[in-house]
Amino acid sequence: MKKQYLLAPGPTPVPPEVLLAMSAPMIHHRSPDFIPVIQKVRAGLKWLFQTSQEVITVAGSGTAGMEASMTNFLSPGDKVIAVNGGKFGERWLKIAKAYGVTPIEVTVPWGDSVDLSQVEKILAGDPAIKAIYVQASETSTGVWHDIQGLARLTAGREQTILVVDAITALGVVNIPMDQWGIDVLITGSQKALMLPPGLACIAVSEKAWSLSQTAKCPRFYLDLKREKDNILKDSNAWTPAVSLWIGLAKSLEMMQAEGLDKLFARHRLLARATREGVRGFGLSIFARQTPSDALTAIVAPEGFDGEAIYKNLRSQYGITGAGGQDQLKGKVFRVSHMGYADTFDIITAISGIEMVLARMGYKGAPLGSGVAKAQEVLIQG
Amino acid sequence: MKKQYLLAPGPTPVPPEVLLAMSAPMIHHRSPDFIPVIQKVRAGLKWLFQTSQEVITVAGSGTAGMEASMTNFLSPGDKVIAVNGGKFGERWLKIAKAYGVTPIEVTVPWGDSVDLSQVEKILAGDPAIKAIYVQASETSTGVWHDIQGLARLTAGREQTILVVDAITALGVVNIPMDQWGIDVLITGSQKALMLPPGLACIAVSEKAWSLSQTAKCPRFYLDLKREKDNILKDSNAWTPAVSLWIGLAKSLEMMQAEGLDKLFARHRLLARATREGVRGFGLSIFARQTPSDALTAIVAPEGFDGEAIYKNLRSQYGITGAGGQDQLKGKVFRVSHMGYADTFDIITAISGIEMVLARMGYKGAPLGSGVAKAQEVLIQG
Repeated sequence: MKKQYLLAPGPTPVPPEVLLAMSAPMIHHRSPDFIPVIQKVRAGLKWLFQTSQEVITVAGSGTAGMEASMTNFLSPGDKVIAVNGGKFGERWLKIAKAYGVTPIEVTVPWGDSVDLSQVEKILAGDPAIKAIYVQASETSTGVWHDIQGLARLTAGREQTILVVDAITALGVVNIPMDQWGIDVLITGSQKALMLPPGLACIAVSEKAWSLSQTAKCPRFYLDLKREKDNILKDSNAWTPAVSLWIGLAKSLEMMQAEGLDKLFARHRLLARATREGVRGFGLSIFARQTPSDALTAIVAPEGFDGEAIYKNLRSQYGITGAGGQDQLKGKVFRVSHMGYADTFDIITAISGIEMVLARMGYKGAPLGSGVAKAQEVLIQG
Repeated sequence: MKKQYLLAPGPTPVPPEVLLAMSAPMIHHRSPDFIPVIQKVRAGLKWLFQTSQEVITVAGSGTAGMEASMTNFLSPGDKVIAVNGGKFGERWLKIAKAYGVTPIEVTVPWGDSVDLSQVEKILAGDPAIKAIYVQASETSTGVWHDIQGLARLTAGREQTILVVDAITALGVVNIPMDQWGIDVLITGSQKALMLPPGLACIAVSEKAWSLSQTAKCPRFYLDLKREKDNILKDSNAWTPAVSLWIGLAKSLEMMQAEGLDKLFARHRLLARATREGVRGFGLSIFARQTPSDALTAIVAPEGFDGEAIYKNLRSQYGITGAGGQDQLKGKVFRVSHMGYADTFDIITAISGIEMVLARMGYKGAPLGSGVAKAQEVLIQG
């Protein structure tokens, strides 16, 4: 018997209450049975996205949401700024290429946060730029980008939208869509929403809806306007992923019971405890300026392979975190603290990392020194 | 207390064994935990599709599969034949329009099956036609189209593929993909696969893969080649809908335990019992030539509203079938007999229809006369 601990940055653990809700007998999505589910999801997502706009939910991965955030608002040849500071930043460039959109790449060294002045300068020099594409939390590096700062840059420009991939950010950190002036805000089900993968949720501002009217990139399955027309009637354009919607209604109910302030405070605390715990054991965080509160990318100490640390966590202690991706393979390993996470998930992560590294011969700090630091943070609440 | 009976043509009932499998704690899709699931699904889908090709599974509804079946094999301006004999046939035209493909519409009156000679004539007159798009089972009308006959028409043409939407057909009726020479075969999770909605599965022949190399329609999230490269390594391009994959592994296991011959024989028997039961109560089937074995569209008797029959089945007896769509609204009502369906689902359907119609004042046949006919069929096995 070995207990399993899922501490990966998505999918994250699904609460038993949600699993139970999802395992009820199937219902029909066009029958009255499904209407209360749609209504709960509509209201709950508006609350979570902090927007008065409808939030569109499609059956698909987060990448489907990212693709929809381009094809629904752009035409081939349109110029956009793409902030590229990691594996998910790179994805904007790939989607742009597939649809003939012209990206102006703002390259951010992996581990850094985007330099706003660089974006501001490009924007100022070209009134034709239609959008900025950025991650709030770059999952490959554990870095946070300054979304509020970027929103200030697009606020005065009627023809430029800010598109934010908040797949590992929404429900973790306060991102008030309407208040900040974000135009397209995307999340996925398998992160802070505490669900299995399979849903992407996308909210769209008035400014972005108006751009969508002239956007010529082809789209059909991911046509957000068609979904909006349907959701306004408590319906869906295509067959929705019924069980995931039922789970979403339940997880939103749990989040609403906690409240936004406490939800964000919990994630802030868990993230800080993780970082302090990691440092207390003599390790360092990969994010240089602003780390994400959703997950922590930890630098493998000199002479140790990050991939081996990830693998030993799994094989020795049943902890599934994540390794490094692409250029970070072997250099970092990652643990998540978003969604259905609490005090002892952090203690588990830090103590597990300590034990694995000790068994690998690490001498940088005594066992328990990281745990103690995490406890100090956690005890202050 | 009112027991609920889901007899809609998708979503269909999910077996308790599958619901249980899907409610296990979440696992990570890039960890070794998920590899046995991928391997079971790969092998099981090849078996079900009767193909040596890889079957691609994406997070999305059946419509995502239909869109992928155009964008991956065509370029804007390409000419294709679209068989349009119902609501799902119409969808080919809408997708073609969104992507700049030129459809040659073969209009089939709702209720009829496609006339092969009409398709043959169009094909013969234009060597540039790249594809035929058709439903195997048109869910809006309950009609079966002759897929084997259409496959004979494309067999000799190296540059023309046959694309079959088998969303309510695969796992119901024998459609041996490789043997018949079908090039693209699509299904969805919420039909005969006995799962919640949220997955589309698409198999692709060598001929179609070779067309995909020159296909210029833009695609990213639904890029099947990218998925193929991944599935060959027991991986997925994007985060898969983990819980639905786990359910799919389980439902494929159940289907494999039954065996293809028995699976098809069961559906054939249930469909025949439904049709005989319906006729035994003095009603008629909407399909004129070849009815689908997946579902039965029943003509509302003269003076009775099909929508009211559908609604009364729900409110009086907890039976959720389906009404008619678009031009058939009020004229037909539909019951499904695909997937997790057996003898007493048919008895339930027929007896429920009898009781509802009797209460609505129908005098065409005595109570039980349809049930008796269904029993006669069912008792013969």
